[in-house]
This record gives sequence, C-alpha cells and structure tokens, in this order.
Amino acid sequence: MAEAKVLSGAGLRGQVAGQTALSTVGQAGAGLTYRGYDVRELAADAHFEEVAYLLLYGELPTQTELAAYSAKLSKLRDLPQALKEVLERIPADAHPMDVMRTGCSFLGNIEPEKDFSAQRDVTDRLLAAFPAIMCYWYRFSHDGKKIDCVTDEPTLGGHFLHLLHGKQPSELHVKVMNVSLILYAEHEFNASTFTARVCASTLSDLYSCVTAAIGSLRGPLHGGANEAAMEMIEKFSSAEDAVEGTLGMLARKDKIMGFGHAIYKDSDPRNEVIKGWSKKLADEVGDKVLFPVSEAIDKTMWEQKKLFPNADFYHASAYHFMGIPTKLFTPIFVCSRLTGWAAHVFEQRANNRIIRPSAEYIGVEQRKFVPIERR
Amino acid sequence: MAEAKVLSGAGLRGQVAGQTALSTVGQAGAGLTYRGYDVRELAADAHFEEVAYLLLYGELPTQTELAAYSAKLSKLRDLPQALKEVLERIPADAHPMDVMRTGCSFLGNIEPEKDFSAQRDVTDRLLAAFPAIMCYWYRFSHDGKKIDCVTDEPTLGGHFLHLLHGKQPSELHVKVMNVSLILYAEHEFNASTFTARVCASTLSDLYSCVTAAIGSLRGPLHGGANEAAMEMIEKFSSAEDAVEGTLGMLARKDKIMGFGHAIYKDSDPRNEVIKGWSKKLADEVGDKVLFPVSEAIDKTMWEQKKLFPNADFYHASAYHFMGIPTKLFTPIFVCSRLTGWAAHVFEQRANNRIIRPSAEYIGVEQRKFVPIERR
Repeated sequence: MAEAKVLSGAGLRGQVAGQTALSTVGQAGAGLTYRGYDVRELAADAHFEEVAYLLLYGELPTQTELAAYSAKLSKLRDLPQALKEVLERIPADAHPMDVMRTGCSFLGNIEPEKDFSAQRDVTDRLLAAFPAIMCYWYRFSHDGKKIDCVTDEPTLGGHFLHLLHGKQPSELHVKVMNVSLILYAEHEFNASTFTARVCASTLSDLYSCVTAAIGSLRGPLHGGANEAAMEMIEKFSSAEDAVEGTLGMLARKDKIMGFGHAIYKDSDPRNEVIKGWSKKLADEVGDKVLFPVSEAIDKTMWEQKKLFPNADFYHASAYHFMGIPTKLFTPIFVCSRLTGWAAHVFEQRANNRIIRPSAEYIGVEQRKFVPIERR
Repeated sequence: MAEAKVLSGAGLRGQVAGQTALSTVGQAGAGLTYRGYDVRELAADAHFEEVAYLLLYGELPTQTELAAYSAKLSKLRDLPQALKEVLERIPADAHPMDVMRTGCSFLGNIEPEKDFSAQRDVTDRLLAAFPAIMCYWYRFSHDGKKIDCVTDEPTLGGHFLHLLHGKQPSELHVKVMNVSLILYAEHEFNASTFTARVCASTLSDLYSCVTAAIGSLRGPLHGGANEAAMEMIEKFSSAEDAVEGTLGMLARKDKIMGFGHAIYKDSDPRNEVIKGWSKKLADEVGDKVLFPVSEAIDKTMWEQKKLFPNADFYHASAYHFMGIPTKLFTPIFVCSRLTGWAAHVFEQRANNRIIRPSAEYIGVEQRKFVPIERR
C-alpha cells in the first residue's frame, strides 16, 4: 500500500473530498448560493420547481421550460399499486425516515434506472412521488385511509399539503412550503450528500444513492434538528417560561437543538427567511405562544451563548402553524434535498473515481490462529 | 469557513479517513488480517460464525461461546410475514441487490434498533435473516414457491444452500460456502464500508448504515466483479478458446473483470484459497471446461499484463459448481460483508465525529437572480 497521508481533522473536517459547481456555503457576500444565486433571492422570488430545475438541469428555466417541467412532475405523482401495498405494511409507530428510505428503495425494484441516461427522469420521478410516499403511509397508518395520490395542485409544496390535509391549501401555506423546499434543497458536502457521492462513486444506481442519503439524513446529528426544536418549544407556555427553561437547560448543559452550525460562524442565511414566514403564519393563526416562545429562546441563546438560530429553528414553528405533524418534518427535508443529492450524483458520475480512503490501523499486532479446541 | 486543505488524490485515495482495529490490507507478512489473524488461517480452520463473532464481539469465541452464538443465529432465521409479502411484490427481473437493500430497509421499520445497546442484536438478526431475504424472493419470483425460511442446518452457509436448493447440501459445499463467507467478511475502508461509516457518523440507525452499504456494494466498480467474471468465463468452450478470446479482449482493450486490485500490488491473498476450493469442486463434478477455461484466462492475464486474479475470479466458478445462479453472487457478498460493515459502524459510534468534508467550488461566480418574466 502506498504511504497514507495522516490528516489531523476527524470527520474529514475542512478537507477537500471533491469538486462541485452546485453551491457555496459560508463564502463572503452570500452565506449560501445555488449555482451562483443567493438562496435568499431564490427563496424570495422563485418557485421550488425553478430551483430544482436549476440544480438538476444547470440553469434557471424560462417560462416555457418551467411549464413543461411542472407538467412533467405533475404526471409522475401517483404511486404504483405494489408500493402502496408495501407502505400499508409499515406500522404507524415506524420512524418516518425508515418509511422514506424503504419507499425509495422499493421503487428502485419496479422502476429501475436502466442506465445513467435515465438519471434525470428517475430524479424527477422521485421528486414527484416522495410527497405521496410520505402521505400515503401517514394517512393509512394513522387514519386508516387509502388516499388518492393525485391532486391538481400546480406546485409540489401545495401537492404535499393537499395530500396531508385532504384539501386545497391556502395561498400563504403554499408559499411557505415553496420557500422551505428552496431553503433545504442543497448544502454542499454535508453528510447525506457525501454519502450519496460515495455510493455514486461505485457507479451504483440513483435509487441506491438516494436511499443511502436518506439513511444518513435520518441521524440526529444531521436531519431531525427541526423536530427536536419543536419538541423543546412545545414544552413552554409563555416567553417568560421559555427564558427560564432555556437558562435551566444551559445550566444543566442540555443540548439545545436548532442553534449554531458546523460551517456558518455568525448566522445562517436561511434563518432570517424562514423566521419572517413563521411570523406571518403566527399572525395568520393568531398565535400568542409558539412564536413568542421561539423568539424568547432565540434571544436567550444569543445573550447567553452568542449562538444564532440555524435553518431548522423557526422551521419548527412554521411547519407547526401549517398543521404538519412533527414526525413529518425530516421527511419534508428529504423531498427538498433530493434535488441536491441527485445533482451531486450527476457530478460524481461525470468525473468519477471510486471513493476509497485509507484507515489508520490501531488494532492488535498480527497473531497466530488458535484452533477452537485450544481456546 | 476555515481554509480547506486541497488534497491531490481523487477518491480520497491513500488518505486516512479514520481509525480501525478491524483489519489490515496489503501490509507486510500477511495480505489481509482480521483483528490480527491472517485470513488464510481463518479460512483454513475457522467457521464463518467464529469469524463473525471475532469481528463483532472482538475475540474468537470459545466452544461454549460459539455454540451459544450459533444457537442464537439459528433462532433468528425466519422472516416476518409482512417482509415476505413485500418480497412477493418484487418481480423476477429486479436487480437482486435492490431486493437485499429493500429487504434490509423494510425490516428496519418493523424491528427497529431502539438504541445503540441493541446494535449487536440487530446485526445478528440481519446476519441470520439475509439468506432468507435473498432466497425467499428468488424462489418465489423464479419458481412461484413460498419456501419455508427455517432449516436445521447448523451453519449459515449450509442454511443458505439449503434454502436455495430445497435440500441438505453436501459437506464439501458447506465447507466452501464457509470459506467464501470468511474471505469476503471484511476489507477495511472499501467504498461500501466507508458509506456505512459516513452514515453511522450522523448517529443514524444500523439498518440505515447497512442499507446504504448495500447500495454502494451494488455498483459495478465494487461488488459484482464475480458476476462479470462468470459471464465472461461462460462464453468460452475450452482452454484454447479462452486464451484466444482473452487475447482478443486485451487487443480490443475490453475490461476483463476479476483481475488486479486497488490496494494489493502483487497478489490477492484470498485468491489462492478460493482457487484451491474451486479446483476441488471442479473435480467433484467432473468439470472439464469451466476450471480449465478459468486457469487459461488467469495464465494469459499474467503473461500478457502481469495482472493477478483477485478474490472474485475463482469465486465465479466455485459458486457455479455449487449450482448458485450468477445473479445471487453479489447478494452472498452482502451476507458476508455485513459483519465487517456492522463492526465498522460500532467503531464509528464508539469514537464519532460527523463525516463532513469540504468541496472545491468550480461553479459560476455569484450572479444576480433574474425573475422568470425576464428570462
């Protein structure tokens, strides 16, 4: 074996593991860009479908291209009967990310990616089908209802809300889902995306890469922070209660989810966006608890620890105001981040070398085998 | 963001991405060791269950420990009815690795890993259940038969052959399956194992890590070389035909599978072992074609290219002589490598930092968003 370079950082932190043209994270000027565009501008003025197209096809679509793309996605929303029957066999107390992982994996059996020329079609299929995978299982296991997986909602965000609630969502809710899906779409070499790239580097199929990425996003150190934030926020009955509770948690050195970031040092550019929309939703429903509680925790964390809320923190209240069950927060993340994962798989395939690092051996010296009779 | 180190090697080749006490690959003295033991000694004198125990529990078992471990695994072989019903919904032309990936993922829904204290139990469950996941689907989709997933075979290798063929396997076949499962059990930071470790680094569950690893092993640059070797070998009718055919493939610069290795430079220590057993099987069945063809290709590759057969090459004929369909070769790899994957997950969890490298940005400069009406 060639001499291996020993690198100081655990977790490959700060080490370049490949190239990307998809995003920058924490660079000067804009905290987060997708193919050169500031995510705040995209969230303000684009549709999620435009951003998906940007990531997957390389440029923002024209009106004609967007119309064609939205029409394509709309036709791909229904699930095959066999997949519905699989989802019906998953109990209500299953981890929703296990459901997403299994739904994606199963679809790969019956609609395989025949070769890499199909990679965009497979991605579009998953993008269109994920809301139904999530909601068909949720509504069947929780309400005993076999929902129709097709709606006439023009957007993916609206389609998801319609499947979940069984009715047309308000304009404001569609807008916020759209913003949320944009904010979560892409984030460079995070752990789930890197998982997808390692898998892609063996030239495996797209379903395997996405299934693997879902498995990584499931981990509490990665996805799931917005769910944890929600569980914390819900415990407090008022802003005063929240300040006191947060101080108590800090004193006990409890982990407080939704604050700080591995890459961003001063603020998360996605936070100001989703916080603004969470406020609008709070006003709409006349909330007097959840948003003030969130702000009180936010303020206390800054005063005490100089820690800022990341993308996940105000997502918790925003989703909650739209009637989304907490356990579906991370699966929504999947519906969005699929675009980034797939775009990274395309990049990896276009300029591939199998990702196979070395390990530092810290085990026992070589030793002689002792037959079991003499152990 | 902190300054990122730019490393020369694509694919993280030769770069240390973590520590392991599980194996050495290509070190002086022995080409491959598992926890200090030369894999050739293990393949000669140990049972696969001993090696699984060694990797998962840290030391070779005593006779009492092995008996208890084998008894535990025997009790865990059957599949839940819901999983059988899922497998019945996967068509015969599905990729068998998609079946393994889906079977593993689905089981995670109904028998979740509640917390990390259950990690060895979940691994043992998967180890015992994988042969049935593979064979139940195979026999149902190909023969229309709902097989009994329980046998009284004392070993996992024998259990697999019994499920596949519906009868007690010969002593020789059980021995060769045992050797094969040992040879494939562990191989340091290969791509599928590294996938499992990246997934584990988010503190995700064991099913997610193994599902992700299966997805990586599926790729033609990783698993599947023994299947490709088989397809090539089967094309030739004699040793002379094979020499001529190999020279032709070399002249056309066709890829010839089963030769050379990313880490081993002179020989693959697993090759001599499986080659010997393939010869014994050839003698048993009175083969006059497949083994001579294999040897002729082997000899020609060395003479022409100084390339040596790796672990996969003689596995092809060995599996074939035991009546194993070519499409199940890589799923058998899963049944074996699960032990290495899981042991690496345990290591990652015991000393974890989330694996989150950086990327070199090669995309467009930051640019102003243009609303869709003006594109």
